[in-house]
Amino acid sequence: MTTFPTRPPLSSTARTSPTRKPQRYAADREALHAVLDATLVCHVGLLLNGSPLVLPTAHGRDGDTLFLHGSTGSGNVRAAAAGAELCVTATVLDGVVYARSLNDHSMNYRCAVIHGRAALVTGEERKEHALRVLSEHLSPGSWDYARRPNRRELAATHVLALDLDEASVKIRRGDPSLDDADRESHSTWAGVLPVHSVFGAPVPASYVPAGTATPEHVSARVSRRTVRPPS
Amino acid sequence: MTTFPTRPPLSSTARTSPTRKPQRYAADREALHAVLDATLVCHVGLLLNGSPLVLPTAHGRDGDTLFLHGSTGSGNVRAAAAGAELCVTATVLDGVVYARSLNDHSMNYRCAVIHGRAALVTGEERKEHALRVLSEHLSPGSWDYARRPNRRELAATHVLALDLDEASVKIRRGDPSLDDADRESHSTWAGVLPVHSVFGAPVPASYVPAGTATPEHVSARVSRRTVRPPS
Repeated sequence: MTTFPTRPPLSSTARTSPTRKPQRYAADREALHAVLDATLVCHVGLLLNGSPLVLPTAHGRDGDTLFLHGSTGSGNVRAAAAGAELCVTATVLDGVVYARSLNDHSMNYRCAVIHGRAALVTGEERKEHALRVLSEHLSPGSWDYARRPNRRELAATHVLALDLDEASVKIRRGDPSLDDADRESHSTWAGVLPVHSVFGAPVPASYVPAGTATPEHVSARVSRRTVRPPS
Repeated sequence: MTTFPTRPPLSSTARTSPTRKPQRYAADREALHAVLDATLVCHVGLLLNGSPLVLPTAHGRDGDTLFLHGSTGSGNVRAAAAGAELCVTATVLDGVVYARSLNDHSMNYRCAVIHGRAALVTGEERKEHALRVLSEHLSPGSWDYARRPNRRELAATHVLALDLDEASVKIRRGDPSLDDADRESHSTWAGVLPVHSVFGAPVPASYVPAGTATPEHVSARVSRRTVRPPS
């Protein structure tokens, strides 16, 4: 007997349900969180002046809320703030998949797709909280080190909150597919070339006096990968 | 006296013209090519069933044509093949920008945005050429090593050609911005933490017999960065 949970674990609307390769869809909310936490840049899609527009942007997650932000002077940010329907996609490329056939060549990846309309975050305290979440995601430690936004800077920034209600996660991992036609091609290599994203050595700004120590929250990051490897 | 070229070097439609920070826009076609060539994954945005949808996909460039491909069973691929308006965005993250103020924290990046409708590539020869371009971008050397697509596989694949006519390139590089309010904060570090994408050691598929040599077109890639560093 199959039992169904009373609440779908992730989302089961038409636009978040698998149409192909259902085995690649993750059904748990933790997978969604993990992909968002593993990416520094997401791509936000919306309709602007009647045309689709996709732009990269930073994000930060707080529970089941995704925060985005941008200049109040930016057309796409203004459209999102006005309630335009959004599609936010975060992708980690984990490897190039070399199969025995070109048709089975692929990529290993983790990809989260979120649909919805964002709410404008208002009020100084809520806005600062959201900006802190964004800041701690992009540059952990900076919130307590650098100068915090003043009123003028806060006023020039739109902060948006998008609920992680309607979302899907697609993951490809592991071996290249093997077509029956290639099963006996034993001498043909196939495998995965992993892709990692890493931090290099920090480069001080030209205006920083020589000898200024690199703060620990920056230097400690160098030995780490920018994104979490797949589990 | 300012002279104007007879043809704009990249594109000057409303949706490809800077509305903010014009200094970040590259005007030359070489910059567009370079960003596309430096990314293994792009994000394709379109309207599907009335909603924006953004999905990652592979691409390959041949002159001023960008090739995309996907399963004929995929809804978004079918919509693109039917002439839906597309926005294709390719982004390279080059670094996390730590400024003296949180407001000036940013990212160094290179981003290409292309607008247009794709044409379905038909005819076995043209389709194979486009697939070869896609293959040589994702996995150089595989076209001459792995089994090429057969008729059944070709028939199950839509190949799309998008002209690079209407496009923009935005690049941020170099030092963090310095607000006047932070000019005298000499003891506060600021700088850039570079981000690189690198290949790891190849992992053979479980079904490949032990001792099978990794082909040179795969192993030679390991010491290389997956994307070209910024110029």
